[in-house]
Amino acid sequence: MNINSKRFLSDLNELRSIGSAGVGKGVIRPAYSEADMAARNWLSGKFSDAGLAPHYDPVGNLFGLAKESSILIGSHSDTQPQGGWLDGALGVICGLELARISRENDGPAISVVSFQDEEGRFGVTTGSAIWAGILSLEEADKLIDKDRISFSSARKKISKFSKDFVDPKRFSGFLECHIEQGPWLYEADHTVGIVTDIVGIRDMRIIFNGEQNHAGTTPMHRRIDAYQSMLSFSQLINARFRNVVTPSTVWTTGHVKIEPDAHSIVPGKCTFSMQWRDGDNQRLDKMEHIIRSTAIEVAKRDGTSVDFTKMHGLKPVQMDEHLQKILCNAAEKICPNRWRNIQSGALHDAANIAKLMPAAMLFVPSIDGISHNFSEDTNEQDLIDGLTVLAEAILN
Amino acid sequence: MNINSKRFLSDLNELRSIGSAGVGKGVIRPAYSEADMAARNWLSGKFSDAGLAPHYDPVGNLFGLAKESSILIGSHSDTQPQGGWLDGALGVICGLELARISRENDGPAISVVSFQDEEGRFGVTTGSAIWAGILSLEEADKLIDKDRISFSSARKKISKFSKDFVDPKRFSGFLECHIEQGPWLYEADHTVGIVTDIVGIRDMRIIFNGEQNHAGTTPMHRRIDAYQSMLSFSQLINARFRNVVTPSTVWTTGHVKIEPDAHSIVPGKCTFSMQWRDGDNQRLDKMEHIIRSTAIEVAKRDGTSVDFTKMHGLKPVQMDEHLQKILCNAAEKICPNRWRNIQSGALHDAANIAKLMPAAMLFVPSIDGISHNFSEDTNEQDLIDGLTVLAEAILN
Repeated sequence: MNINSKRFLSDLNELRSIGSAGVGKGVIRPAYSEADMAARNWLSGKFSDAGLAPHYDPVGNLFGLAKESSILIGSHSDTQPQGGWLDGALGVICGLELARISRENDGPAISVVSFQDEEGRFGVTTGSAIWAGILSLEEADKLIDKDRISFSSARKKISKFSKDFVDPKRFSGFLECHIEQGPWLYEADHTVGIVTDIVGIRDMRIIFNGEQNHAGTTPMHRRIDAYQSMLSFSQLINARFRNVVTPSTVWTTGHVKIEPDAHSIVPGKCTFSMQWRDGDNQRLDKMEHIIRSTAIEVAKRDGTSVDFTKMHGLKPVQMDEHLQKILCNAAEKICPNRWRNIQSGALHDAANIAKLMPAAMLFVPSIDGISHNFSEDTNEQDLIDGLTVLAEAILN
Repeated sequence: MNINSKRFLSDLNELRSIGSAGVGKGVIRPAYSEADMAARNWLSGKFSDAGLAPHYDPVGNLFGLAKESSILIGSHSDTQPQGGWLDGALGVICGLELARISRENDGPAISVVSFQDEEGRFGVTTGSAIWAGILSLEEADKLIDKDRISFSSARKKISKFSKDFVDPKRFSGFLECHIEQGPWLYEADHTVGIVTDIVGIRDMRIIFNGEQNHAGTTPMHRRIDAYQSMLSFSQLINARFRNVVTPSTVWTTGHVKIEPDAHSIVPGKCTFSMQWRDGDNQRLDKMEHIIRSTAIEVAKRDGTSVDFTKMHGLKPVQMDEHLQKILCNAAEKICPNRWRNIQSGALHDAANIAKLMPAAMLFVPSIDGISHNFSEDTNEQDLIDGLTVLAEAILN
């Protein structure tokens, strides 16, 4: 069985041209943008050409359905506001090419999918979360993007040609090919990673309330400075996490808001994000305990008060063991000693689809670990190797 | 000699009603607002009643001029966007009452002034800085407020009735009464503070540049996190300042901007303000050296880079020794053991006017040290004591 790498790369590059950023290989194709809809319509034609029935569900997930019960392969074709060309798109074009190869080689039936809004213009992996029943349509419709456009108004764009939700029972399992978006495969010179699990994530905002005051006339010993409480908190958890975490655990403060945010005023309020990710739910629990108790301890010591917003959380998701084994065997055959098992630090549609059916993922390397960036890229041979491993797993 | 405390308090309260916030005793009367112009026109009438010639200079400083060579007494009647009723206004009404008392008691000639934009809608102590030649009119005209309104367009409001700049040579010295805006007098139960000096201030922004990255897939050891550099910097200077500062030295980070400011992205850039104040210029130098060298050291260690914006600085200003002595003698007579010498941690018009003539300041307590806030207040007896000490100094 031979894959058609020329056709595969040609389609991948054609998809890249829809919403091209004009900067390197960058792409600007956020969910429901004109470019996103143009890309989905292009995909729809490709599905027809491959003998698959195009099918938009009510939230914009685009399926290419085989007639009979089938395997489902895909990912998403929407991008970040400043996105790379492979993130998501690779998995969809892999699905398309595998459906064509399998048909040409009398292999099993394969359906393809491009989920909508994986990149979170409105929610988090919105389209697959709704299909998997994790997010209700009612709740989803209330979601708004940063320009205050609602998901319910955005999805009206497809209401003319959308049909019902697809019955997940038609599919025996889900495979998603994706770039790693991290440095591990690239640094180890591995061409393929078989994903063991997708890490869990917890995310909230912490607010320290102090006393807004004149920065010239308020002596240091009289200040109740909300910024200083954030400072102490962040430093303390860095130290306290040391005996709890593994090398793949991550934690991030990516958002900070100081009030009133003026040079000459001692900050009265400091709001900041705290997000942590790990593959072990118990470790996520331990970290949460450290975060909450440290914030309370710092507030008590500093005379500030502390509030926590509602915590958003996703549990770690194990990939299907049987599918993992098939993928590992295929990888060992196609690229012996150049593959490894790997944990996914990023969230993917597969985490939602695992609720519906056996699901597995295959990663290819990201050059320098760069993603969510116009300069995101992967060596061509790695793209082809990833596709070949999937073809081997499906057809042999 | 008796002061007319009823007339003094009545004028102070009448001025408070112009631009009243409707919240406690709060006032909203920023420079060149309708309320500010109404207050100045009201003052202008009061000056005429007191036998003083009202005189707007080209930048909106309002003088009430005695016919002959005189002492100048005053402050400013503009307020913060959410201001207190005494800050500035007290000094202007003190000047008005002292001019009246002196006239009624055949004392020395007194002129009164309300400087424009002491609170910095456009610049920093804008009106008195221009009059003192510290800021040129050309530069001042280019200043813009946060709504991008220029000082040159704002001051057109008074172009019809403004005259030339007043010749500073008409004045033999400047006295400014002001609330302390800090806690020292109130905590010590002192009714009056005679200012020895106005602290110097240095202010800049520091920018750490790191590497923007995915917060899920970028391992901790691979991150170059600009937020973490700010964290280490702030903690280190807190420790390193300990052997350098005095109890009245202050330093503040009141502004922070993280980029791109998203929960799931490792910060690529962190910009924050660093402001420090002290009465000793050499100590300000030492602190600046610690700030710059620590930021460079942290950047080197973290793999970030660091930039500093242009530093704004004002040197500490000594109050005139002869005027201080006269005020101290008057305080010792009027309120023995209930006054002290004090340093001003806030900037005042007197710091600019000291370039033109001998200048001195008298503080009265701020309840709980609160200022730049609707709840700013001072006990009535302290207001009267402050005025009485000034009257004693001038008349006896």
